[in-house]
Amino acid sequence: MIVTTTGSNTTAVTQLVRAARETYAYRRFGGGIGRPLLCLQHFTGTLDNWDPAVTDALASGREVVLFDSAGVGRSTGRVPTTVAGMSSHTLDFLDAVGLSTCDVLGFSLGGMVAQQMVLERPSMFRRMILVGTAPRGGVDIMHLEKPNLARHLGDPTLHGYAVLQKIFFAPTSPSQMAGRQFIERLAQRTEDLDKPSGPEVASAQMAAFREWERAAETSEGALRDVTHPTLVVNGIHDEMIPVSNSYRLAETLPNAVMLVYPDSGHGSLFQFHESFARHAAAFLTSDSPYAPY
Amino acid sequence: MIVTTTGSNTTAVTQLVRAARETYAYRRFGGGIGRPLLCLQHFTGTLDNWDPAVTDALASGREVVLFDSAGVGRSTGRVPTTVAGMSSHTLDFLDAVGLSTCDVLGFSLGGMVAQQMVLERPSMFRRMILVGTAPRGGVDIMHLEKPNLARHLGDPTLHGYAVLQKIFFAPTSPSQMAGRQFIERLAQRTEDLDKPSGPEVASAQMAAFREWERAAETSEGALRDVTHPTLVVNGIHDEMIPVSNSYRLAETLPNAVMLVYPDSGHGSLFQFHESFARHAAAFLTSDSPYAPY
Repeated sequence: MIVTTTGSNTTAVTQLVRAARETYAYRRFGGGIGRPLLCLQHFTGTLDNWDPAVTDALASGREVVLFDSAGVGRSTGRVPTTVAGMSSHTLDFLDAVGLSTCDVLGFSLGGMVAQQMVLERPSMFRRMILVGTAPRGGVDIMHLEKPNLARHLGDPTLHGYAVLQKIFFAPTSPSQMAGRQFIERLAQRTEDLDKPSGPEVASAQMAAFREWERAAETSEGALRDVTHPTLVVNGIHDEMIPVSNSYRLAETLPNAVMLVYPDSGHGSLFQFHESFARHAAAFLTSDSPYAPY
Repeated sequence: MIVTTTGSNTTAVTQLVRAARETYAYRRFGGGIGRPLLCLQHFTGTLDNWDPAVTDALASGREVVLFDSAGVGRSTGRVPTTVAGMSSHTLDFLDAVGLSTCDVLGFSLGGMVAQQMVLERPSMFRRMILVGTAPRGGVDIMHLEKPNLARHLGDPTLHGYAVLQKIFFAPTSPSQMAGRQFIERLAQRTEDLDKPSGPEVASAQMAAFREWERAAETSEGALRDVTHPTLVVNGIHDEMIPVSNSYRLAETLPNAVMLVYPDSGHGSLFQFHESFARHAAAFLTSDSPYAPY
């Protein structure tokens, strides 16, 4: 019997699981006939950075599993300085919670981890959603020193989530309004919170971006053999990981549909959360061997 | 009262309308609460080149209007040698049949005509679908002398629609199989057929491609002011009008969602007709001022 439960990242209890090397914090909620969906988070993001408008909509058809990788939030250990290191922790986590197969949604840094995991253990994963991310050897990845990003990151008047409104959304009125609504949704969770990431998380993850970007060998050869149905999503004006990286993913992965949103930046999935959740659900619900949905 | 009718491009009767300068052949079928959808055809295509799997699926929610521009099929006159000339005939046609407002689906050359019309009479059109097309000043547009195209166009063993299977679809088994199914669907119509386009149609339309491609001024400035919700669609391996042109459309039009299909060429909408019709219908059914659907 399939039990459908509801759930929300605003209220889900944070759990802990002891794995091979570390103890990982995670949340698991929702249900339905779909395969569980593992969600892999962006630079410095914790469990509390997942937009309930996205996770809860997807949780109505399948279990949604959010987790903190090593050294992030309430997970123990040190943050690896390579994507491969993060992939290794994520696989440990999946083994520890007994998830032998799942779909995966990787956003930004999380999309790089997703690619790495699918290359390492292809049979474990069915469908991939890669949002605002880049292939290994991609271009212009997370250069926070760029003026359009640095001026917000260095703005002393921006506190907490407010900086995300500036750097995840385009500098237009509709996009900034969507950004305000996004941080209001994040703020709905008020208890059982992760500790925000500090500079040690940021510097290790930034090292991982540099290693991924500067790779002498791109991942294109390897990605050409990844036949998993994939949905590549990006905002057209993404300053953090430009859309050209999604173009390259779509041109390389043999079975990837690409969906690009207008008037949006890195957080396109949060800006157009209704549309994104609808597309993601349609894509995940399909049992075709082909990506188009 | 809204009357919903069914219809098919396999069986719809071809009609003629006398307009300001010429008499145009057209077909009009289907119905529903949606605005009528004007479909603008590709290089050398006639009424008989519209895939019923696409037109008929869309006709279940709105009227679909197909037409032959001047000098094509059974329409009188000479084929213009510019996209602007084709736009002018299309506007004449709409006036003659009394369509004061509609949505538009432009494929390839038809997508250029759609852009031109929307620039000339913005208030007449609501939503645009641009498939396998390019902005004015786009790159590598319809160079049939390229070896991957020329070898099929010059193959004496390919007759009738068979050449379309080769040049509209990718050289993989799934894409070529979809191509065979496409030409089988076209062949279902056996009566009341247009005459196929000859060399005089091809050479005038090719002149229009060259004028569009070599434009000293691109259309980017003008397109930045086009706020119509737009859906840009392309096959990732389009040899006729490369996907980079769709990237540029999505980067320029301020309100465009882009959807790119894997393992497909110029005819991605026919290869993935179920998916395309589903996306197109969802996009056209939306009454949001924003393109995401």
